[in-house]
Amino acid sequence: MSENTIIYGKNAVMEALEDGKREFNKILIANNSRSDAKLERIKELAAQKGIVFQFTAKEKLNQMLPEGRHQGVIAQISPVKYTNLDDFIEKYKGEDTALVILDGVEDSHNAGAIIRSCVCAGVKGIILPSRRGVLINSTVEKTSAGAINHISIIKVNSLPAAIQKLKENNYWVIASDHHAEDNYYDINYTNMNFALIMGAEHSGISKSLLKLADFKVKIPMLTNFNSLNVSNAAAIILFESVRQKLKGKRGL
Amino acid sequence: MSENTIIYGKNAVMEALEDGKREFNKILIANNSRSDAKLERIKELAAQKGIVFQFTAKEKLNQMLPEGRHQGVIAQISPVKYTNLDDFIEKYKGEDTALVILDGVEDSHNAGAIIRSCVCAGVKGIILPSRRGVLINSTVEKTSAGAINHISIIKVNSLPAAIQKLKENNYWVIASDHHAEDNYYDINYTNMNFALIMGAEHSGISKSLLKLADFKVKIPMLTNFNSLNVSNAAAIILFESVRQKLKGKRGL
Repeated sequence: MSENTIIYGKNAVMEALEDGKREFNKILIANNSRSDAKLERIKELAAQKGIVFQFTAKEKLNQMLPEGRHQGVIAQISPVKYTNLDDFIEKYKGEDTALVILDGVEDSHNAGAIIRSCVCAGVKGIILPSRRGVLINSTVEKTSAGAINHISIIKVNSLPAAIQKLKENNYWVIASDHHAEDNYYDINYTNMNFALIMGAEHSGISKSLLKLADFKVKIPMLTNFNSLNVSNAAAIILFESVRQKLKGKRGL
Repeated sequence: MSENTIIYGKNAVMEALEDGKREFNKILIANNSRSDAKLERIKELAAQKGIVFQFTAKEKLNQMLPEGRHQGVIAQISPVKYTNLDDFIEKYKGEDTALVILDGVEDSHNAGAIIRSCVCAGVKGIILPSRRGVLINSTVEKTSAGAINHISIIKVNSLPAAIQKLKENNYWVIASDHHAEDNYYDINYTNMNFALIMGAEHSGISKSLLKLADFKVKIPMLTNFNSLNVSNAAAIILFESVRQKLKGKRGL
């Protein structure tokens, strides 16, 4: 991890939280850190701003920086500003808007490739959960080939709450699930808002989110080797939506 | 590079060439190697077997192994056996067979993801050029999630010659090219053999191969950000062929 994507040490993290110019992904605090006024202030500011702080083995922090330097606190910084979901919904009201939700995707290369495909496919926003899965880091930025600057990136503390809000705002929620009965090309993506949920590389979409979906779709295979890479799966579904939009639903 | 994917030292490489049990990707020979009987024998055997040998800066070999160990010769070994193109064509005669050709794809992760999508989409073979682009290594193997064992992997010394042979054997050749006029979903992939050419990450498909293609297709975008990852582009086109096959051409 390059140093320009982290801030470390109690003073530096506290000051960055106070001035509010940097965009935080999360704050890692060593398990064995002794509580003091600065650490308490960091936790208080993080809680106020809705920034996740995670207690982490000291050894993990040591892998990122020599122990003497981090003082038990490392903040991961995002290269982009995150957008608020309410602001996003407001901004795109009245347009047919597509969103992608990543539920626990861990691999930075996959996340970057998905964001790249999203921008090509006219998707306006991507929702990332703050605790589970990857946020925007320098690998995501690089793999996205600059696409992170052409899409709203929305970080939320609760995916179920975000999905609920989208449904209340006239979004159809589509889950990519290989146990689904419907094929991804048998649903209509045109003339509507939709949010497509893609699940984690191994475990797929959480059950609690699957329950909230309006549609569940699978990508049918021609062999029993049922194991698409998640970024390829996202591209296949998103470009079916593009095909339908460009062909004006002919073929459904 | 892990040591079980390379063989190094003149004796070891010569013996491996002689016994013929290992599958070679290519043989790297240090620029400054002094010719001797063993090195001549290595070149002779490599030429007989159609294995590429490349003269390479000594420093590059030193990055792979300490100088004292490689003695100026490192052979890269494939974890899978390559298939001969003639054997492949013969094996699948009479079936509607799909193939993918990678023209200079350099990134092992992309190659692995493409092979994974190929197997899911019922593609029977993948053609890799022996000189330009990635061959099968441990990263490709891992990224493919085991898919390399479910597809014929064909290594050829000349892509134009391979394409010519495919055309003579009733394959339609489709090139993915973002300058193309036709959209990928406007051509018919059913009831025929086809070979889909995907180009290098930055430069695309070589002009000499584009000329040989029967169809050139583009993936239309909804924005000007025209920059899909090559494995995502391959997945989009291949799964359009799957969609057509499963829907029986309805929609075209």
